[in-house]
Amino acid sequence: MRLPPHVTVVEVGPRDGLQHESIGLSVADTVAFIERLGGAGLPVIEVGAFVSPKWVPSMAHTDAVVAALSRRPGVRYAALVPNLIGIERAAVAGITDIALFGATSETFSRRNINQSIADSFATFRVVMLRAHALGMRVRGYLSTCFGCPYEGDVPPARVVELTRALLDLGVVEVAISDTIGVATPGQVWRVLGALAPVVPIGSIALHLHDTRGAALANVLAGLQAGVTIFDASCGGLGGCPYAPGATGNLATEDLVAMLHGLGIDTGVDLEALLGVSTFIADRIGGRLPSRYFQAWRATAGRGEAW
Amino acid sequence: MRLPPHVTVVEVGPRDGLQHESIGLSVADTVAFIERLGGAGLPVIEVGAFVSPKWVPSMAHTDAVVAALSRRPGVRYAALVPNLIGIERAAVAGITDIALFGATSETFSRRNINQSIADSFATFRVVMLRAHALGMRVRGYLSTCFGCPYEGDVPPARVVELTRALLDLGVVEVAISDTIGVATPGQVWRVLGALAPVVPIGSIALHLHDTRGAALANVLAGLQAGVTIFDASCGGLGGCPYAPGATGNLATEDLVAMLHGLGIDTGVDLEALLGVSTFIADRIGGRLPSRYFQAWRATAGRGEAW
Repeated sequence: MRLPPHVTVVEVGPRDGLQHESIGLSVADTVAFIERLGGAGLPVIEVGAFVSPKWVPSMAHTDAVVAALSRRPGVRYAALVPNLIGIERAAVAGITDIALFGATSETFSRRNINQSIADSFATFRVVMLRAHALGMRVRGYLSTCFGCPYEGDVPPARVVELTRALLDLGVVEVAISDTIGVATPGQVWRVLGALAPVVPIGSIALHLHDTRGAALANVLAGLQAGVTIFDASCGGLGGCPYAPGATGNLATEDLVAMLHGLGIDTGVDLEALLGVSTFIADRIGGRLPSRYFQAWRATAGRGEAW
Repeated sequence: MRLPPHVTVVEVGPRDGLQHESIGLSVADTVAFIERLGGAGLPVIEVGAFVSPKWVPSMAHTDAVVAALSRRPGVRYAALVPNLIGIERAAVAGITDIALFGATSETFSRRNINQSIADSFATFRVVMLRAHALGMRVRGYLSTCFGCPYEGDVPPARVVELTRALLDLGVVEVAISDTIGVATPGQVWRVLGALAPVVPIGSIALHLHDTRGAALANVLAGLQAGVTIFDASCGGLGGCPYAPGATGNLATEDLVAMLHGLGIDTGVDLEALLGVSTFIADRIGGRLPSRYFQAWRATAGRGEAW
């Protein structure tokens, strides 16, 4: 079975994770979280979102977090940017990696970012012009690529069309997202099989959620299709299975452990990463959704593999 | 990607699941559990273990459960049998499908069944003679095939040797077991790659645990290697991630949902299965480890896919 020798893990915990956690972290704890993630070898960290604090109160402190952050050479610190106000805030903060947020489903787009898909692309175009002027690297998220909570099935052709459109705008990477965690490996192959003849596979990231337990199976399917960029959230932060509306983020340690078990290099120190999860677990009440973290905690100090 | 068109799901919840649950089910509830599993289309159900009640108190009621059970035509009801006393109890109960329990690691074998591997095979030989005289179908479990909590790595050659030995005794199926949930897909391919030239792939079942979140990825790897028999536990029963020593059983609904998503037939009615999980969740305090079940419960009645 041919698999890539190296995978880039994009850590989204401080953004996608904390965004959904009801227990907000302080600026100091968020900064410590991000610095520890960098120390554990995560090469790309999404640190927050320059969105309206009215809409996403949990991200209101992104400017303060970025200002307080000691940046580690070689680590890319990225942030979500919804519009021109957001990109100016990012520029002031010294962020050079930004991400746009689009969807494949009209209903999801309207409910999530309050814009039609066409309007969201009009916004992207304006933001991209500014991003290029500022020399920023831009990633695009494409949500609901494997199913929409409102519209149901999403045709792979639609994913291809919108991915192509994002790349045409100058986005360097598109995160094909399983927003509600409904994908199965067959779907991953179908969507990637539709994308592969049209876009460079190196420009495709997979953003998978473990809502129904299939995230790592979908990672495996993605690896077999040649994908080398995968998103994950430290500890599975934001994915608490008992919280209604939780997104079920794939946990970084679950991902890294499987990749290392497959002989795939990530540059991440798994033990150090588990230390970061411990740090965050202590701050949000003890439990994290990550299966690997739970197994590690249950066996720690017992000198056994379980 | 070539995958088998049909998979046999072996439901181990009433045995492997309840064995580890601290909250014991009554005989009546266990019987109702098993009958509902049959009603949901599970073709093989492990109903209990004819082991010493001194060693496994939670299985003490297996004789009573089997006696009270209304059996559904076409469903195989199986039970664990450790020795001659066990097989006589199985015969009296009218059980014709039994399972032996062996390990690849000496330390695990001694701690789990209080016998060396050689001694366990001596026992198997005696039990097999009686099983053949009684016309029983015998499955063999081989635990710790992907790692032992005491001895660490297990060479694939050892798995092959012991699988071969079990088949030579007349066992018709060997459940290659990831007892502590440490397998990764690379290991699954290595172990199955070592087995495939030596034993018929149709005689191999995979018994995977989701302790570290990789069970469905390992199922996918197994499917790609031609395995068509997978064990799982309704609701993930026995695998509560917060219970120390919990085994992390792969949940039947997580498995069935992925298989159906891959277009693989199982004969299982997923909605009916979720009803069985609801029944069991109500009896053991509300929560079950299954990710699919949790997502289904969180969205039930909201008219959305999440």
